[in-house]
Amino acid sequence: MKTIAMLHPGEMGAAVGACLVSRGHRVVWASAGRSPATVARAKAAGLVDAGTVAQALQGAEIVFSICPPHAALAQAKEVAACAYRGIYVDANAVAPKTVHAVQKTVEAVGAQLVDGGIIGSAPNGKNSTRIYLSGKGGADIADLFKGSFLNSIALDAPIGAASALKMCYAAWTKGATALLADIRSLAQAEGVEAALLSEWAISQPATIKRSEQVTAAARKAWRWIAEMEEIASSFEAVGLPGHFHHGASEIYRRLDGFKDIAQPPAMQEILAELLPKKG
Amino acid sequence: MKTIAMLHPGEMGAAVGACLVSRGHRVVWASAGRSPATVARAKAAGLVDAGTVAQALQGAEIVFSICPPHAALAQAKEVAACAYRGIYVDANAVAPKTVHAVQKTVEAVGAQLVDGGIIGSAPNGKNSTRIYLSGKGGADIADLFKGSFLNSIALDAPIGAASALKMCYAAWTKGATALLADIRSLAQAEGVEAALLSEWAISQPATIKRSEQVTAAARKAWRWIAEMEEIASSFEAVGLPGHFHHGASEIYRRLDGFKDIAQPPAMQEILAELLPKKG
Repeated sequence: MKTIAMLHPGEMGAAVGACLVSRGHRVVWASAGRSPATVARAKAAGLVDAGTVAQALQGAEIVFSICPPHAALAQAKEVAACAYRGIYVDANAVAPKTVHAVQKTVEAVGAQLVDGGIIGSAPNGKNSTRIYLSGKGGADIADLFKGSFLNSIALDAPIGAASALKMCYAAWTKGATALLADIRSLAQAEGVEAALLSEWAISQPATIKRSEQVTAAARKAWRWIAEMEEIASSFEAVGLPGHFHHGASEIYRRLDGFKDIAQPPAMQEILAELLPKKG
Repeated sequence: MKTIAMLHPGEMGAAVGACLVSRGHRVVWASAGRSPATVARAKAAGLVDAGTVAQALQGAEIVFSICPPHAALAQAKEVAACAYRGIYVDANAVAPKTVHAVQKTVEAVGAQLVDGGIIGSAPNGKNSTRIYLSGKGGADIADLFKGSFLNSIALDAPIGAASALKMCYAAWTKGATALLADIRSLAQAEGVEAALLSEWAISQPATIKRSEQVTAAARKAWRWIAEMEEIASSFEAVGLPGHFHHGASEIYRRLDGFKDIAQPPAMQEILAELLPKKG
């Protein structure tokens, strides 16, 4: 049984932590500076509050970084500043280039990086979620989850592969949601929304519902702004067009006011935010 | 029964012309400077060769412009230069802004514009294709097709609406095809193609086949470069992100070497064109 630090238990991190607890591991976290909602979530997940990040790292053999993509590198720097020398699993939605920067950061102080990518929603036994792992030691991390709600798959591939896979996956799911929201907005701006919906009803019936997935996504849009930029940069790093996800990032930027909203907004509320204000 | 000029009978134009012929109209075209393949196609469709564009316009009450999007405005200028004063139906995949420029061009010499947008493949009785029409006189144009293989729908909306609807529709179908081709290329570049396909098999099974639609699209990519730019400009004209379709345009630009290829290329041939050449 291992001692594992979870930085930081948001919705996904808490659920992944609970999976580790369910396998008998001791999972610690750092409540310093975190919100009451995070405290409640970590407690419910069975995580042990160690106080500060430095305290959480003491005695931990493994650290999981599960945070919004724009915070991933800063998280690695904070851990490196504590001279942490164990295994560091970056399971964030970041570009291969970013995970290589994380690797450089944590390995400079003697830690070892494992690359991770999570696909699916927070694992709770009612859904299907996978964590992909790559790099040396990926198979050992995968083993930690065997028998839990989180399916783990070690790729026989170097650091960068798990992140690349996550980027490819989200490029479609979150990219398509943004593209369709853009299209619904254009239809509304041009006064052809009813005509588009009736044409889709004839030739693309599944597209109508799909174009409204943005309503459920809106509460998470603030986190996806940087994720879309990470995806764009993944394409550009290999000479492919990154434009799609610069567009998706802009769509989610316009929706960031819906952060953590309790009930999904109506489609018309979404379109009102996406379209420039008149006058 | 009307005399109608079809400029120019490509695959779509010839099929739309045949629909008009099937309703008893006389459909003329201009063979001057066109390829033997176009001559054969027009003949098979029952169109009458008038020789030049100027000759085709003589006696025509209605002109249909059905051409690659990048040629739409030049086509209107050529017709205006002949002092044509009948009805001009622009049925091309162009932005509302472009159709307004076409309107200005043809109405300057006394013609009347009707805006059109065709959704679906060339109508042949085995598929389902619609032409949307907007602007004054749209309903009369719609009536020409009643009882033919082409379903016609007059929108109660001004010039620009039929084009906007076409832009919205193609923004998804052709935009999503390009986005998925970009993603497949990234997966290949990062060595995670097999992992992505097996993840999709678990969670997005329809996406695998959809990501290969680009193979069937490749022969038409050369025409879609400008169409994607027309779509991007449609978004930008109303203050929405146009990035997605600048990306799609770049994808189709990389595939323009497959122009009119007889057999769809293999997926790996597509990816080889999309990825920058090494070394």
